[in-house]
Amino acid sequence: MAVNLPLPVAANLNPVAGIELGYAEAGIRKTNRKDLLVMKLASTATVAGVFTTNRFCAAPVQVCKAHLEGLCISGSPIRALVINTGNANAGTGEAGLADANATCVALAELLDCEPSQILPFSTGVILEPLPVDRIKSGLPQAIANLKADHWYQAAESIMTTDTQPKAASRKVTINGTSITLTGISKGAGMIKPNMATMLSFMATDAKIAQPVLEHLVKSAADRSFNCITIDGDTSTNDSFMLIATGTAELEVSSIDSVEYAELSDAVIGLSQELAQMIVRDGEGATKFITITVEEGANIEECRKIAYSIGHSPLVKTAFFASDPNLGRILAAIGYAGVNDLDVTKVNLYLDDVWIAKNGGRHPDYNEQDGQRVMKQSEITIRVKLGRGTEAATIWTCDLSHEYVTINADYRS
Amino acid sequence: MAVNLPLPVAANLNPVAGIELGYAEAGIRKTNRKDLLVMKLASTATVAGVFTTNRFCAAPVQVCKAHLEGLCISGSPIRALVINTGNANAGTGEAGLADANATCVALAELLDCEPSQILPFSTGVILEPLPVDRIKSGLPQAIANLKADHWYQAAESIMTTDTQPKAASRKVTINGTSITLTGISKGAGMIKPNMATMLSFMATDAKIAQPVLEHLVKSAADRSFNCITIDGDTSTNDSFMLIATGTAELEVSSIDSVEYAELSDAVIGLSQELAQMIVRDGEGATKFITITVEEGANIEECRKIAYSIGHSPLVKTAFFASDPNLGRILAAIGYAGVNDLDVTKVNLYLDDVWIAKNGGRHPDYNEQDGQRVMKQSEITIRVKLGRGTEAATIWTCDLSHEYVTINADYRS
Repeated sequence: MAVNLPLPVAANLNPVAGIELGYAEAGIRKTNRKDLLVMKLASTATVAGVFTTNRFCAAPVQVCKAHLEGLCISGSPIRALVINTGNANAGTGEAGLADANATCVALAELLDCEPSQILPFSTGVILEPLPVDRIKSGLPQAIANLKADHWYQAAESIMTTDTQPKAASRKVTINGTSITLTGISKGAGMIKPNMATMLSFMATDAKIAQPVLEHLVKSAADRSFNCITIDGDTSTNDSFMLIATGTAELEVSSIDSVEYAELSDAVIGLSQELAQMIVRDGEGATKFITITVEEGANIEECRKIAYSIGHSPLVKTAFFASDPNLGRILAAIGYAGVNDLDVTKVNLYLDDVWIAKNGGRHPDYNEQDGQRVMKQSEITIRVKLGRGTEAATIWTCDLSHEYVTINADYRS
Repeated sequence: MAVNLPLPVAANLNPVAGIELGYAEAGIRKTNRKDLLVMKLASTATVAGVFTTNRFCAAPVQVCKAHLEGLCISGSPIRALVINTGNANAGTGEAGLADANATCVALAELLDCEPSQILPFSTGVILEPLPVDRIKSGLPQAIANLKADHWYQAAESIMTTDTQPKAASRKVTINGTSITLTGISKGAGMIKPNMATMLSFMATDAKIAQPVLEHLVKSAADRSFNCITIDGDTSTNDSFMLIATGTAELEVSSIDSVEYAELSDAVIGLSQELAQMIVRDGEGATKFITITVEEGANIEECRKIAYSIGHSPLVKTAFFASDPNLGRILAAIGYAGVNDLDVTKVNLYLDDVWIAKNGGRHPDYNEQDGQRVMKQSEITIRVKLGRGTEAATIWTCDLSHEYVTINADYRS
């Protein structure tokens, strides 16, 4: 049921020199599916990430954070990432931490490095013990098939309720040097802003200094993965990691450089592509909806209103039904928590159709026009607040029967 | 699909002296259904209410507020309430205000009072012009059948997607005087806290001074209608009105009196009954869920966490499926926005089953026990935060296929 989601073509996913990907069928939750991924990095690589802000953040997230912090002290670079699906290793207490650490120890032995040079990730069911022995058993298989051109298989290996793998790639020339950017992501429910909110791994062969990479990953997340919502739920595990292998000649050592600006555009562009893929494949999605709130006094209130619309089950079911019951959008604007909002200044558009003028139904609006837009698979909701010059855009999907089916049956 | 919702028995709904109810089939949206209600009050009555905090509050809500404020100045009591279903008269701008006022003018003429002595209410579709002529035409029919024992029919007249009428009644003796309390309410989607969030009208024959009544209605709403959630959407229209006709001998003139305390208990009790009926008849509900958060540092954080759980589509679909995927509850606790929450102090129970101990799966927990509770139609989620002594309780329901069907088809 994905909405205009392009199936990645393996041949179009450019390898990134300095990174190899290996997968395994470890039988973590189900048999005969790729559920374990190892990303092996060149020793020149830098790595930075943003993580869920959920207080119940999963054991692997805690371990990742510790290893990335340790990096500054030890100076030993991260050498590999290991990702399992089928189990989130969240809500698992001390035992979960021990399991995440054991995963790092096992992989470090195989790769001849320190456990602190490994970053672990998990996604799947919460509150169940991680079958760490199956992961350990699967690791040699993953290492045996490490290849630079396994990005498509890597995208498959991190899927949970995703209906298809998500990957994108591009080459850009900066300062006369061609660099590669390739990334993968997975959703598909539990997507909410401000929390990295899914798994995504992106790599480039540019050489990027650690503090620059940390700035870049946060800035890209704020413009992509932090602008999507499917059901308002924020996962315990989700992470967006940016890897710079440093094998290309381009070196970016300051955020004030021309190189940074060009690189940043490319990273944000690819991040938005991967983030939007998650929404297009949102659980049960049948519509891809862009919500833009303009003329706000500040960006925060624009985002607040955009998310209020994007999270409203009533709005989302109306879009599923292609029913122009658009008063529900006004209601969502009204309860967004912008307490001094003057609704008589609010204008609402659905694509090119002017629905509400100065807070009330536009006199020329007729339902046929609303109906026409509602039937499309891609729709833009535009709200003008008449309060200022700031704006924000988010991306979301509708709420369908299929969403309920998927989430009622997820574990069965 | 309502969950253990008792069908009110007309004979058990005690009339309240000083109030008469008349209904009509005005054909506002559909034919052959009661869609217009007039509640006529004795001249001794006092009236107070709480209203939606949605900034897009409907025209009738604006008119109600103005008339209640005018009351203090004019001293002319409210003489009637008029409620229509089928159209919310919200998002209708100046024309909507004119329509709400026209309704008051029409009813005032029929009852020989001032338009400012009428309170209008609407519920139904937003953003469509109110068919005020049909309301005007229906008013004489409603007035012709005004009767003190029409509470059951009144409950029927205010239904929208409700599957059955909601009404409750009780008699209590205070200071040796028997007084009556009877109320009606309607839901059934768009239910969220802090906003009165539905329509409910309750009347008593006690004589209650205006400032006391205003205090009482707010205090009762905070303990009942503001503690329920179905889908997190907050309507533009919803209102809870408390009417004291003053025909009984009991007089309550201070909130510090013993009479007030006893009356307050009865009003809160009946309000909770009516509020819980709304949840039991929540759109598509198959489970009635009580969420209690204890050991909080303050009530606000307890409510925040309770609502985070109660609004989570992932939690709600798991309850629909009777699937003990209870990690989703931990995730919802974690993203509730209590930023200094120490998850290692959190304990989670499902009825008598201890699910999570100190933030992780309880070692003795087994899924059969969780499954057993999940299959019940009434379930209590209990969270202990280990931070203090405050607590809060809310009531909600699950998220089913039927919810999507109802809201996708609401207008068709």
